[in-house]
Amino acid sequence: MYLHGRNVLREILALCRSSIKVRRVLFTDQANVDPELPALMSETKHKGFRVEMASQKVLVNLSREKKNQGVLVELREFPYSELEAIKNLPRKKHSIIVMLDRIQDPHNLGAIARTSVAAGADALVITSRASAQVTPAVVKVSAGLIFRIPVIRVVNLVRTMETLKECGYWIYGSATGGEHYLKIPYAERSVLVMGNESEGLRRLVRERCDALVAIPMAKRVDSINVSAAAAVLLFSLREKLIGDDSQ
Amino acid sequence: MYLHGRNVLREILALCRSSIKVRRVLFTDQANVDPELPALMSETKHKGFRVEMASQKVLVNLSREKKNQGVLVELREFPYSELEAIKNLPRKKHSIIVMLDRIQDPHNLGAIARTSVAAGADALVITSRASAQVTPAVVKVSAGLIFRIPVIRVVNLVRTMETLKECGYWIYGSATGGEHYLKIPYAERSVLVMGNESEGLRRLVRERCDALVAIPMAKRVDSINVSAAAAVLLFSLREKLIGDDSQ
Repeated sequence: MYLHGRNVLREILALCRSSIKVRRVLFTDQANVDPELPALMSETKHKGFRVEMASQKVLVNLSREKKNQGVLVELREFPYSELEAIKNLPRKKHSIIVMLDRIQDPHNLGAIARTSVAAGADALVITSRASAQVTPAVVKVSAGLIFRIPVIRVVNLVRTMETLKECGYWIYGSATGGEHYLKIPYAERSVLVMGNESEGLRRLVRERCDALVAIPMAKRVDSINVSAAAAVLLFSLREKLIGDDSQ
Repeated sequence: MYLHGRNVLREILALCRSSIKVRRVLFTDQANVDPELPALMSETKHKGFRVEMASQKVLVNLSREKKNQGVLVELREFPYSELEAIKNLPRKKHSIIVMLDRIQDPHNLGAIARTSVAAGADALVITSRASAQVTPAVVKVSAGLIFRIPVIRVVNLVRTMETLKECGYWIYGSATGGEHYLKIPYAERSVLVMGNESEGLRRLVRERCDALVAIPMAKRVDSINVSAAAAVLLFSLREKLIGDDSQ
């Protein structure tokens, strides 16, 4: 897959994980496109990645994006993580994991990934079937931030919930009719599960949750966009568990 | 413009405003597409709208949407409101208005409209230039809820801010470096201003705000998607001003 833009390249250069398979990094052969490019190119070479020059036309063809900022990264595939990654998370008092039950829209996946990183979540879990996977469009919507969080792809969400419970996590599912999201006494290790755009959580997933949470809304409104709901819930969770660690 | 789907038609049928200019409502001529359609069709006729039958092919061509649910509404234009609408809002203790400074992405406009309705906001203000306007894509993302809130289109946002201040509103702009969003003592009549996806608020708009608000984020993250940020801010505002009136 081809990812474009300076920010995505910077995110990839900042990664320590060896799991990321970069085939090559393409830079525009046009001079003076961007004063930052030469420094970025030498950093890319310095990190041992293969660098090639290409015409703007080639860059547009490969990325299908005119505003590619003269930079393209070719990845063999998105570096998904295994569930084992959860066990290797740095030990700390609080932990938030975001789990998605069949989110379909790449916009939503990208926005939720970005929000998860901003809220300090430790991992994002998606299913390998019936879910949007990480595509260039998802990376773009996430503003490249999806590289800062392990994206764990699992076959069986219910079994993953059991594993997370064994690791000491409590699981909160977003569902109409749940408890008021501000009145939930979240556990120090919390998983937030968001359901499919039109159907919500599957019954089996809902039944495995320790509690269901809901955002009370104005009269006659059932729901908001799933990425908007995830933001409201994640930042309330962040506020309760972590507070302001940005300083 | 052609809007599709049962929910959109229901929202339009529920509107009392005479400002909405419905040219005609098209129903599929295929029988048994949906058991709800006959009742919806007779309600549409009962409300005095022009009803026509059309083949599924015509419906797809007009709406460019395969999943049109056999229903299309043709509007002359989206029924924008005038700023005067603010003065005619029902008198109540609390009021929230959402103002958008050059939001570009139809996804964001649609999601923010839906969130605004869900959070109990009284109006949505957009600019007539350099902003996404209300298109069928926006209506779809809003799940049809954009018809439940006056969308006020103005030429000059700064002048509109002055008018709102004269009406007793306090204006809060979303901006990096603003005060912690949970520590703001919001006024009973509050306007929340969200800025452009990449540039944020324009300087003149920012300077007219009574206060700037920000969502503290994890290390090294600057921002989240504007519709996610709007959701976090609007529901915190709703919680402080309105509380749970959904019962």
